[in-house]
Amino acid sequence: MGERACILEQLSSEYHDFNGSGYLVLNEPPTPIQFSRLVHISRPVLIMGVDMIASRSWTDEYLSEALGNNTISVAVTPDGRADAVTLGPDGQSYFVEPAVEQMSMSDFLSKLAKDDQHSDVYYLQSQNGNVYSSAFFDGTDNKSEFDALREDIPSEIDWCSEALGRNPDAVNLWIGSRRSSTSLHSDPYENIYHVVRGAKHFILLPPTEGWCLQERLYPHARWTRSHPNEPLNVVPSQNTPPVRWASVSPQQLPEFTHPIHITVNAGETLYLPPGWWHYVLQDDATIALNYWYDMEMQGLGFTILNFLRGEAES
Amino acid sequence: MGERACILEQLSSEYHDFNGSGYLVLNEPPTPIQFSRLVHISRPVLIMGVDMIASRSWTDEYLSEALGNNTISVAVTPDGRADAVTLGPDGQSYFVEPAVEQMSMSDFLSKLAKDDQHSDVYYLQSQNGNVYSSAFFDGTDNKSEFDALREDIPSEIDWCSEALGRNPDAVNLWIGSRRSSTSLHSDPYENIYHVVRGAKHFILLPPTEGWCLQERLYPHARWTRSHPNEPLNVVPSQNTPPVRWASVSPQQLPEFTHPIHITVNAGETLYLPPGWWHYVLQDDATIALNYWYDMEMQGLGFTILNFLRGEAES
Repeated sequence: MGERACILEQLSSEYHDFNGSGYLVLNEPPTPIQFSRLVHISRPVLIMGVDMIASRSWTDEYLSEALGNNTISVAVTPDGRADAVTLGPDGQSYFVEPAVEQMSMSDFLSKLAKDDQHSDVYYLQSQNGNVYSSAFFDGTDNKSEFDALREDIPSEIDWCSEALGRNPDAVNLWIGSRRSSTSLHSDPYENIYHVVRGAKHFILLPPTEGWCLQERLYPHARWTRSHPNEPLNVVPSQNTPPVRWASVSPQQLPEFTHPIHITVNAGETLYLPPGWWHYVLQDDATIALNYWYDMEMQGLGFTILNFLRGEAES
Repeated sequence: MGERACILEQLSSEYHDFNGSGYLVLNEPPTPIQFSRLVHISRPVLIMGVDMIASRSWTDEYLSEALGNNTISVAVTPDGRADAVTLGPDGQSYFVEPAVEQMSMSDFLSKLAKDDQHSDVYYLQSQNGNVYSSAFFDGTDNKSEFDALREDIPSEIDWCSEALGRNPDAVNLWIGSRRSSTSLHSDPYENIYHVVRGAKHFILLPPTEGWCLQERLYPHARWTRSHPNEPLNVVPSQNTPPVRWASVSPQQLPEFTHPIHITVNAGETLYLPPGWWHYVLQDDATIALNYWYDMEMQGLGFTILNFLRGEAES
């Protein structure tokens, strides 16, 4: 084992000795100052009672009617693994993004409801600020595929915006089934993840355990159909740079790691701090909203997250 | 250069690239939420307008009269270097604590005023919570050498206590002259340092630059007189464990470091975050108050401070 790996293993051991593998559950949302302290601690927190009342009335019928014939962008894969490392036709591993198909909310929800093990897997996960983007907060753009749902969705989480002193960078709607998963990764964002319907199942690892996840550069590809009714194939991209991604699946986590399992049920909210590795599954017909806020870039935090990432031997 | 040194040098370069060597100056005290964000950033901040009105009336006469014949504990050294690495009579380097002598405030201030290059150097720096200690906040002890000044000294800094969600661990009074210095060191505390009279001159280094300060274990000694009127000598301690201390003086900082010079004048307040290395000088007859708060022990902060300390080759 190289010296860098030894240093990282010692750091992660000490972090675990100090912090354990528990998580805090709050019975009501924190005040801004309480949340600011939690941001400084930077460990996951499950929060009850965040006020998202309007979205409680979201039945399939309501959503279909609200969006009518508007088209929405839906990720499609044969196996439910959007944004994941997958074997290509040449036997090489690629970081494969999903196909993106346009359809009405009504069509999408019908496809989701048809739980056919042999059909393609549809997942609304456009995650580009599909409800509110930074352009919305800048006042430079006011368009979203989900305009019709905006009156049900607060544009920010008050106690989080006040604690961080900023608006969200992106607010996203997620709708998926048990056939979809989100592969293990981490984001440099403060993340407030609220489940509207169903349940999300998170497996979390602290930033200190990233060193044993074998992050590597994978060439980029995309699930693509040669014709509209043909099956999806992995098609390597021509001009997209390679993507650094973890090579370890949650079923084969190194013995060293200390995963934290958190189920977020309807009405509950997860605070997921920057740099925490997460693998996500969900129940059928699960709807969630997430609020990404830029992390604080001043200070030591970002430098340390960068240091903790990447291969043990670099 | 070993791999650990390479890693630490790279980390400190990246930290400096991201953060530079500037510091924030606030024209008025922060709100609790603003201060909480500053604690998360963990960089020094010079703050104007912190309300310490009562202490503005502290003349030598006022202080002498207030404390009367009460004895106070004063650090004494021949060279003004209390708590510093010094050569012992055997030619070996020791971490040497000052002698501590009891006297009245009036006597102490007379000694301070006599600026004789050949006399011993007196420095009121008992720094054990000499005004308010954690026992005061626990309600288990209510005694201080400076009881008579307590009505002039707030027991906490409101916006700091609220941001951190805790009381101070110690509140200290410091009175010294230009002949005293505080050698380069770092503390695992949030520190609010207010200058009442005179000026304090800080040289600061970020926690990321600790690796090049050659922290080493030094045997413990104390400046001691064999008889009351005899000169002070370095006397090695028998049963005190060795002390880890930096071997580098501010006059010989490695080229790699990026020192920040901050003068804190009367009425100004320095926020000095945990883990920041500081060397401190002062003008003659300088009076200061400092508030130490426990740093947050949950999360990654303390683990990283430990990692950044110590020798590059360990």
